[in-house]
Amino acid sequence: MTYNNITGVAMITHINPVGSMNLLSQVEVDHLKQSASGALYKLFRNCALAVLNSGSKTDSSKEILDRYQSFDINVIRRERGVKLELFNPPDHAFVDGEIIRGIQDHLFSVLRDIIYVNSKLQQESQLSLTSSLHLTDLVFSILRNARAVNPGSEPNLAVCWGGHSINATEYQYTREVGNELGLREMNICTGCGPGAMEGPMKGAAVGHAKQRVTGSRYIGLTEPSIIAAEPPNPIVNELVILPDIEKRLEAFVRLGHGIIIFPGGAGTAEEILYILGIMMHPENRHQPIPIILTGPEESADYFRSVDEFIGNTLGPDAQSLYQIIINDPAEVARRVKNAMPLVRDYRKSVGDAYSFNWSLKIEPEFQLPFNPDHKSMASLNLSGDQPPQQLAANLRRAFSGIVAGNVKEGGIKAIEQEGPFLLSGEPKMMQMMDTLLQAFVEQQRMKLPGSVYVPCYQITR
Amino acid sequence: MTYNNITGVAMITHINPVGSMNLLSQVEVDHLKQSASGALYKLFRNCALAVLNSGSKTDSSKEILDRYQSFDINVIRRERGVKLELFNPPDHAFVDGEIIRGIQDHLFSVLRDIIYVNSKLQQESQLSLTSSLHLTDLVFSILRNARAVNPGSEPNLAVCWGGHSINATEYQYTREVGNELGLREMNICTGCGPGAMEGPMKGAAVGHAKQRVTGSRYIGLTEPSIIAAEPPNPIVNELVILPDIEKRLEAFVRLGHGIIIFPGGAGTAEEILYILGIMMHPENRHQPIPIILTGPEESADYFRSVDEFIGNTLGPDAQSLYQIIINDPAEVARRVKNAMPLVRDYRKSVGDAYSFNWSLKIEPEFQLPFNPDHKSMASLNLSGDQPPQQLAANLRRAFSGIVAGNVKEGGIKAIEQEGPFLLSGEPKMMQMMDTLLQAFVEQQRMKLPGSVYVPCYQITR
Amino acid sequence: MTYNNITGVAMITHINPVGSMNLLSQVEVDHLKQSASGALYKLFRNCALAVLNSGSKTDSSKEILDRYQSFDINVIRRERGVKLELFNPPDHAFVDGEIIRGIQDHLFSVLRDIIYVNSKLQQESQLSLTSSLHLTDLVFSILRNARAVNPGSEPNLAVCWGGHSINATEYQYTREVGNELGLREMNICTGCGPGAMEGPMKGAAVGHAKQRVTGSRYIGLTEPSIIAAEPPNPIVNELVILPDIEKRLEAFVRLGHGIIIFPGGAGTAEEILYILGIMMHPENRHQPIPIILTGPEESADYFRSVDEFIGNTLGPDAQSLYQIIINDPAEVARRVKNAMPLVRDYRKSVGDAYSFNWSLKIEPEFQLPFNPDHKSMASLNLSGDQPPQQLAANLRRAFSGIVAGNVKEGGIKAIEQEGPFLLSGEPKMMQMMDTLLQAFVEQQRMKLPGSVYVPCYQITR
Amino acid sequence: MTYNNITGVAMITHINPVGSMNLLSQVEVDHLKQSASGALYKLFRNCALAVLNSGSKTDSSKEILDRYQSFDINVIRRERGVKLELFNPPDHAFVDGEIIRGIQDHLFSVLRDIIYVNSKLQQESQLSLTSSLHLTDLVFSILRNARAVNPGSEPNLAVCWGGHSINATEYQYTREVGNELGLREMNICTGCGPGAMEGPMKGAAVGHAKQRVTGSRYIGLTEPSIIAAEPPNPIVNELVILPDIEKRLEAFVRLGHGIIIFPGGAGTAEEILYILGIMMHPENRHQPIPIILTGPEESADYFRSVDEFIGNTLGPDAQSLYQIIINDPAEVARRVKNAMPLVRDYRKSVGDAYSFNWSLKIEPEFQLPFNPDHKSMASLNLSGDQPPQQLAANLRRAFSGIVAGNVKEGGIKAIEQEGPFLLSGEPKMMQMMDTLLQAFVEQQRMKLPGSVYVPCYQITR
Repeated sequence: MTYNNITGVAMITHINPVGSMNLLSQVEVDHLKQSASGALYKLFRNCALAVLNSGSKTDSSKEILDRYQSFDINVIRRERGVKLELFNPPDHAFVDGEIIRGIQDHLFSVLRDIIYVNSKLQQESQLSLTSSLHLTDLVFSILRNARAVNPGSEPNLAVCWGGHSINATEYQYTREVGNELGLREMNICTGCGPGAMEGPMKGAAVGHAKQRVTGSRYIGLTEPSIIAAEPPNPIVNELVILPDIEKRLEAFVRLGHGIIIFPGGAGTAEEILYILGIMMHPENRHQPIPIILTGPEESADYFRSVDEFIGNTLGPDAQSLYQIIINDPAEVARRVKNAMPLVRDYRKSVGDAYSFNWSLKIEPEFQLPFNPDHKSMASLNLSGDQPPQQLAANLRRAFSGIVAGNVKEGGIKAIEQEGPFLLSGEPKMMQMMDTLLQAFVEQQRMKLPGSVYVPCYQITR
Repeated sequence: MTYNNITGVAMITHINPVGSMNLLSQVEVDHLKQSASGALYKLFRNCALAVLNSGSKTDSSKEILDRYQSFDINVIRRERGVKLELFNPPDHAFVDGEIIRGIQDHLFSVLRDIIYVNSKLQQESQLSLTSSLHLTDLVFSILRNARAVNPGSEPNLAVCWGGHSINATEYQYTREVGNELGLREMNICTGCGPGAMEGPMKGAAVGHAKQRVTGSRYIGLTEPSIIAAEPPNPIVNELVILPDIEKRLEAFVRLGHGIIIFPGGAGTAEEILYILGIMMHPENRHQPIPIILTGPEESADYFRSVDEFIGNTLGPDAQSLYQIIINDPAEVARRVKNAMPLVRDYRKSVGDAYSFNWSLKIEPEFQLPFNPDHKSMASLNLSGDQPPQQLAANLRRAFSGIVAGNVKEGGIKAIEQEGPFLLSGEPKMMQMMDTLLQAFVEQQRMKLPGSVYVPCYQITR
Repeated sequence: MTYNNITGVAMITHINPVGSMNLLSQVEVDHLKQSASGALYKLFRNCALAVLNSGSKTDSSKEILDRYQSFDINVIRRERGVKLELFNPPDHAFVDGEIIRGIQDHLFSVLRDIIYVNSKLQQESQLSLTSSLHLTDLVFSILRNARAVNPGSEPNLAVCWGGHSINATEYQYTREVGNELGLREMNICTGCGPGAMEGPMKGAAVGHAKQRVTGSRYIGLTEPSIIAAEPPNPIVNELVILPDIEKRLEAFVRLGHGIIIFPGGAGTAEEILYILGIMMHPENRHQPIPIILTGPEESADYFRSVDEFIGNTLGPDAQSLYQIIINDPAEVARRVKNAMPLVRDYRKSVGDAYSFNWSLKIEPEFQLPFNPDHKSMASLNLSGDQPPQQLAANLRRAFSGIVAGNVKEGGIKAIEQEGPFLLSGEPKMMQMMDTLLQAFVEQQRMKLPGSVYVPCYQITR
Repeated sequence: MTYNNITGVAMITHINPVGSMNLLSQVEVDHLKQSASGALYKLFRNCALAVLNSGSKTDSSKEILDRYQSFDINVIRRERGVKLELFNPPDHAFVDGEIIRGIQDHLFSVLRDIIYVNSKLQQESQLSLTSSLHLTDLVFSILRNARAVNPGSEPNLAVCWGGHSINATEYQYTREVGNELGLREMNICTGCGPGAMEGPMKGAAVGHAKQRVTGSRYIGLTEPSIIAAEPPNPIVNELVILPDIEKRLEAFVRLGHGIIIFPGGAGTAEEILYILGIMMHPENRHQPIPIILTGPEESADYFRSVDEFIGNTLGPDAQSLYQIIINDPAEVARRVKNAMPLVRDYRKSVGDAYSFNWSLKIEPEFQLPFNPDHKSMASLNLSGDQPPQQLAANLRRAFSGIVAGNVKEGGIKAIEQEGPFLLSGEPKMMQMMDTLLQAFVEQQRMKLPGSVYVPCYQITR
C-alpha cells in the first residue's frame, strides 16, 4: 500500500485486497487478470475511478473522467493472491500515502462485482438467464458473495428511494427521517449516490451514534452505468454493484424490510411503479412490507400528483398499498419500525429468511432486462386495456428509458443520434404521463439545478 | 424504562443503570440516596437536566432551568441496585417512550461523578487534598472509576481546546482538523460543549467512518459549574465530570497525548497558560507532547496577539514549546500523529503508562483550587519579577477568575454585588493583559454573539 | 516477564499485572508495597507459592513450602503501576521463560484479594463488621472487585460442593455430572481444590467444547487458610480468595443459582448444614434454589446416613429442601437446568439481580466468623431444644471446627498442644454425630487415603 | 430442532443449517436434494451417521452401521434454505431433545463437503482434474468453502500425524506433546480419528485453557472412505472432508506450518513418504517447515527402523529433512514454535500467504489419485534405479494400497475376492519393506489390539 513517485510523470501504488477478494485461488486471479485487461477493462477502470473519487464535490462523470485521463489500473497476481496496481490515482483517496480504508473496500467491491461476478457467470454453465428462478438465484449469489445477506439478524433494513437532485429543504428532510430511523436502530439501504440516497444515511449515522449502536449497515446498491455519475458516499460500508437496473431493483426489494420513497424524478417514478406492480400480485397480498411516500411540507403537491397518476393508471388497489406522510419524520420512522414484527412473523409463518425475501413473487416482466432504444420505447403498450400489473410493468419500462436518455451513456448517445424517444399510447394515459413528466422538469428533478433540461422523450397521443 | 403519564400533570419514568452504576451494593445505593436528596441535590438535579437537554439548540443554562422548572429526579433503591426516577423530563431525550441510550449513559455519568465520587471522598479518610500526590491520585481515581483509563491502547488521544463561541469559519476549520485527525485514527478529548469543543468530534466521526475505525473515543471532560451552560453534545461517548477546573485541566494533560488549541477567549487563555506553565518545569523538558495553536486564515491575527503576549510575559522559552499552524488541517493532524511514536517511546523509557501520564510534573500551584473572589483576584501577584513558571500560574488564575465572572453562577453573583474584579500589577504587564482581553471582547469571544459584553474585570495599572 | 539467572543462586523474574491490578494509582501501589512487606507478607508469600504450584501433583502444603524455601516475592512500584518480583519460583509455572497466563492471573488474584482488600478495609472507616448488611456488602465488594459479578448474564451458575478426598468412582461421577452440566451450558463454581472441586470443572469443559460454548466460567472460591493445601486447578479462570469460611460460604450461595453436593467429609457436612440452615428461614421459603445431593451407586449409603442425620436433627422440613439422586448425571443436570427459569422469574418478581442474590436472608449466626478453639467448641449448644435453624448454625460450627482441626494450620497446632476438641450436648444428638463422623473416618473422607486418621475431636455425651 | 416420537417406530427430527450451509439459494438446495437422494445418497447417509456417533466408544464402522440400520436422512427444502431430516438418529447426539451443537456443525460439514462440493464440481466446467494447478485449486476451494483458510492469522498450525491404534504410553505421550504445543499457543490439525489424531487435540485444549487462549482451532481433515471408521472426536471444531487421500494429504501440507509424526502403521508410513517426497523437490529446499518424528522412550526402536528404511531407500538427503526426538514433549513443541518466525519470513519473502502454502511445489505424481487394485499394486515400480523422489511417490502408493486393503471398504472387498495384493520389486527393497511391515504387524499398528491381523499384501522378491 505504499505510494511512490516512480517518475516525474506516473504515481504508482499497490493496494492489498480486502473482504472476499483476500481469499482467491491462483486460477481465480488469472481469470480476473484476463477479464480486467480484456473486454471489461474500460468498465472496470471507470468504476474504479468513480469510487476513488468518493466524496469529491462534482457529480458529473464526464468531469471526473476528463480530469483523470492518465489514471490506469491493473490486476496483478502474487503468490498469495491478487493486488491492484494504480497509476495516477486521485490524491484525495489517500492519507499520508495510505489509501483510505473505506475507499479500499469500495475498490475491491468493484473488482468483486464487475470482474469476478462476470467470470463466475461464464463458468456456471447451468444458469438460465431467462428463468425467473435463476435470475433470482443470480441476484442472491451476487449479494451473498458481497456478504450482504446476514442470516443472523432481525428485520431492520429500511430501503430509501428518491431523487439525486433534490432541493435543500428536501435534503434536510431526508436527513431527519434518517436520524429518526437511526434512533430506532434501523439500518439503511439506498442507491448510494447524492441527494435522497445520501441524506438518510448521514442522518442515521447520527441517530445510531446517539443510541450507541454498533455494526450499523449503510448498504449502497448501484449499477455500472450509474456509479460513475453517482460515486458512493463515504458512509456506505457495504457497496454492491448489480449488473443492471432490474437486478438492482430486485436486490432492493428482497433485501429490505420496509420502503421509504422521497421526492424524485423519472427514476423515482420507475421505482414506485416497480414496487407497486409487484405488490399488486395476488401471491404478495399478505406481504407486510410498509411502503411510505414522504417529504416536507413543500413536497405535498409533488406527492399529490404522483398519487393522482397512480390512481388514474393503476387504480385504487395500487393506491391502497402505500401511505403518504407529509412533514413528520418521526412518524415515518415509527411506522416502518412498528411493521418490523409483522415482517418477522410473516417470514416465520411461511418459513422464509429474514435476510432475503424469497417468498416475494416477482414476475419475469419485472426481471428481464429492458433495453431502452427507439424501437423498444416506441412499441411499449401504454394503454389502459391491460391488467394493471402489466400496465405497471410497461410504465416502469417507459420511465426507465427516460432515465437512460437523461443520464446513461448509451441512452444519451442514442438520443443525440436519433432524436427523442417517441412514446405513444392511449391519449388519456399519454396526457397523464405528460403532465407528470412536465412537473418533474419544472421542479428540476430531471437534472441538477443550473442546467437547462431538454426532454429526451416526446409524447405522441 | 417505561414512560407513563401518571396524572394530567406529571410524567414519571424510571431509568435503569448502566456502566459501573449497574453494580452497586445496597450500602452504596443508600449513600447515594442520602447524598442525592441532601446537600448535593440541587447540583445533581441541574446537571441531570443539562444532559437531558443534550443536543437542544439553546446554550443558556438559565433558559433550560426556567423551561423545566417542574423537572425532578430521585435516586431509588431496588433489591438489585439503583434506579433513577425522573419527573417531567424533556421529551426530546426519549424515542417512542424509551430514553436515548447516549443520554442514559450521560445521566449515570452525572450520578457516578457528582454523587458517587463525593461519597467516596467522605469514606477515604487518608486522602489529603493539599498533597500533590493525593490530588493526582484523586484525578486518576475519578477517571478510572469512569473507565476512561485504558491500559491496553497505544497513544492516540488528541486534546482539543478552544472557545465555545467561535464564528462559522472557525467552526468549520475545527471540523476539518477533526476529520484529518479521524483519518489518522486519532481519538478526541474536549471540554464537551459547543464550538471548538464540538467541531473536532464531529469531524473525527466522519474521518473514523471513512477509515472503518471502530471503538472510537469522544471523551468529554467537564465541571459541575459549566455543564449546565454547555450540555455535552450527543457524540461524546465518555463523559466525565471533574470537581473543579484545576482537576479538569490535570485530567486533560495526563490523559492526552497531544494538544491542539483553537481560537477562544479567556478560558482558552487559561488553558494555554496552564500547559505552558507545566511544560516549562525542568522535569518536563523531555516530555514530547506536541502543542499546536491553529486556526483558519482569519485567525492569524488572533494567534499573533496571543503569541506576542506569551513572548512578552513568559519569554521565548515558553514560545518554543508550541507551534502555530495557520490554515492547514492536514498538517496539524500529521504533526500530532507523527509525535505519537515519540510519546510512546518516552513513556516506555521512563516506565510510564500510555494511558495516564504519571511522570508529568505538576506543581501544587497548578493543582490547588483557586477560588476567584474580589479579594483573591485583587491580591494576585502579576508582576514580572517572579520566575516565569510562577507568573504563568498567577496569570492562569487571573483568566480563570474572568471565566468565572463571565459564565459561572458564583462569579456572576459576586460581580453583581460588588462590581468588577480589580486586577493590579506591574503597569507593563497590565497593559498587555488589557490589550489581549480587549481583543477577545472585540472578537466576541467572551460571550455568544448578539449580546453586549460588560467586562467583569477592571485593570488598574 | 523475562526470566533471568542473575547469579548461580537466585532466579529473578518480573511479572506484569493483569485484570484490575493493571490500573492502580501510585498511592495504591505504595499501600500494597507496605502491606506486602509487613504483617501480611507471610500469608501473601505462601498463597502466591500455592498458585505457582497449580497443577503440581502433591497436595500437601507442607511439602510445597518445604521444597521452595528459597522462594521470595516482592511488590515493586513502577511509574505506571505495580509489578511482582519473584525469586526462585517453581519452574513449572513457566513456559520457555514466560509465566503461564493462567498462573499469572491467579497470582494477581492473590495480590488483589489478600493485600488490596485488606488495605481497602483499613480505609473504609464506616464499615461495621458485625452488621449483617455490612458483611454482605463486603462479600459483594470483594466479588465485584474480582469482576465475578456479571450483571448482564442469565442464571446459569451451578455450585458444586463435596470432598477433596473422594475415590476414583466418585471422582469419575463428578466429571460426568460436570459434562452433563456443560452440555446444558451451565457454568461451574467450586472450592477450587482437587476431588469434587475439580471433577465437575473438567467435565464441564468438555461439555462446553461439544456445545461450542465460549466465555465459560470456572469460578474457584477459596480462603487463605486453605489455598496452600488445595492449589487452584488450572481450569479455574476466576479465582477469588475470601477472608474466611463464613464469607466464602456466603459468596457461594449469593453467586450461585443451584447447588449440587457430592460425597465428602466434615467440610461437606458443614456446607449442607449451612445451606439448610439458611433455606429454613421463613423469608427464604420462596427462593427456588435447587439443592441436589448426588453420587454414584456406591455412594447411596453415604447419602442415606447424611439424610438420616438431617432428619433426626433438623427434621423433615429440612429434608424437604433437597433431593437425593443416585447414579444419574443427566437427571442431576436436567433438574438444575430446569430450575433456572424459576430462579430468573423469582429474582425478577422481587426486583433482585441475577448475578447476586441480595434477597436471600442470611442471619448473623451464619455470617459472623466462628473461631474454633477448645473453649468455643466445648461451649457449643448442641441440644435439640432450640429452633432447628439455630441448631443448624451450631452444628455447622462444630463441623467447621473439625475441618480446622484436620487441615488448617491454627487448628492443627491447637490440637497438638491441648488434645482433641471436646464436643458435648444431648446424648442422642451426640450419638448421631459420632456415628456420622465415624462413617466419614471409615470411608477415608477426613484425610487423603494412605494416612491413618487420628480424630481431632472427642464426643462426650 | 425439535425431537418428536412420531409413531412407535420412527423418531424424526429436523436440524437447522449452520455455517455456509445457512446461506444457500433455492437452486442450490434443489441440487443438494437431488444429489443427496441419488447416487451420493449412501455415502452421505453413512458419513452423517458417522458424525452422529462422535464420541461413541466403538471404532468399527461395521458395528455402527449395523446398529443403526433404521437410520435415514433427507435433505429438505424450505423457503429460506435447507434443513436436514433425521430418522432414528443415535440418542447420544442429543441433549434433552436438542442436537449437540458440535455434532450439528459436523453434520453440515458432511453435507457441505460431500454433496455441495460434488455439485460444484459438476458446474465448474473449466476445471481440469489432471492439471496440477487445478487440483491445488480444488483443494484450496474446498478448504476455503469450509472457512478453513484464515488470511488474518500468523503461522501457528501444527499438523500431527500418527496411528489410530497406538498403545496407552504412546497415547499419553501424544497428549503431553499437545499440552506443550497448547502452552505455546499452537493450533492443531490431525486426521481427526482416535489415537495419535485425538491425543494432541486433547492435550492442546488443556494447554490453551492454561494460557487463556481463545479462538483455538482443532482442525480435522478426513475422507469419506475413512470417516465412518474414525468418527471425528468432539474436540474437532473444524471438520473438512476431502474427496480422497491425495487431496487430504495436500490439504495437510498446504495448511500446516509444521509437522509432527507420532508412531503409526502403514498410513503413517504413507504420510512420511509423502512429505519427504515433496520436500526433496529442489524448488522446496528453502521451505522452512519443521518435520519432527517423536514418541516416548518405548518408541525409540520404532523410529530407528523407520529411519533406517528411509536411509536405505531414499538416502541421507531425505534423512536430513527431519529430526527424531525421543521422550521430550517440551522440546518437540519448542522446535516447532521456534520455526514459526522462519515460516513467516519465508512466506513473506516469496509473497506467499501464511494461511495456505501456494509456493510449495507438489508434482502430479503426488496429486493424482492412486486407485489401489491388484493390477496397479502389482505394477508399481519399486526399484532403486529411479530418482529418489520418484521412488518416494511409488512407495507412498504401495503403503496407501495396504491401508486400503486393511480398512477401506473397496480394498477389503478386493482382497476377499482376489487374495492379497502382490508387491514386487528389487529384492533388497522388498526385504526392507517386508521387515518394516512385519514390525508394524508385531507392534499391533495395523489393526486395533485384540484382533488377529491377516496381511492384505504379499511381497514377492
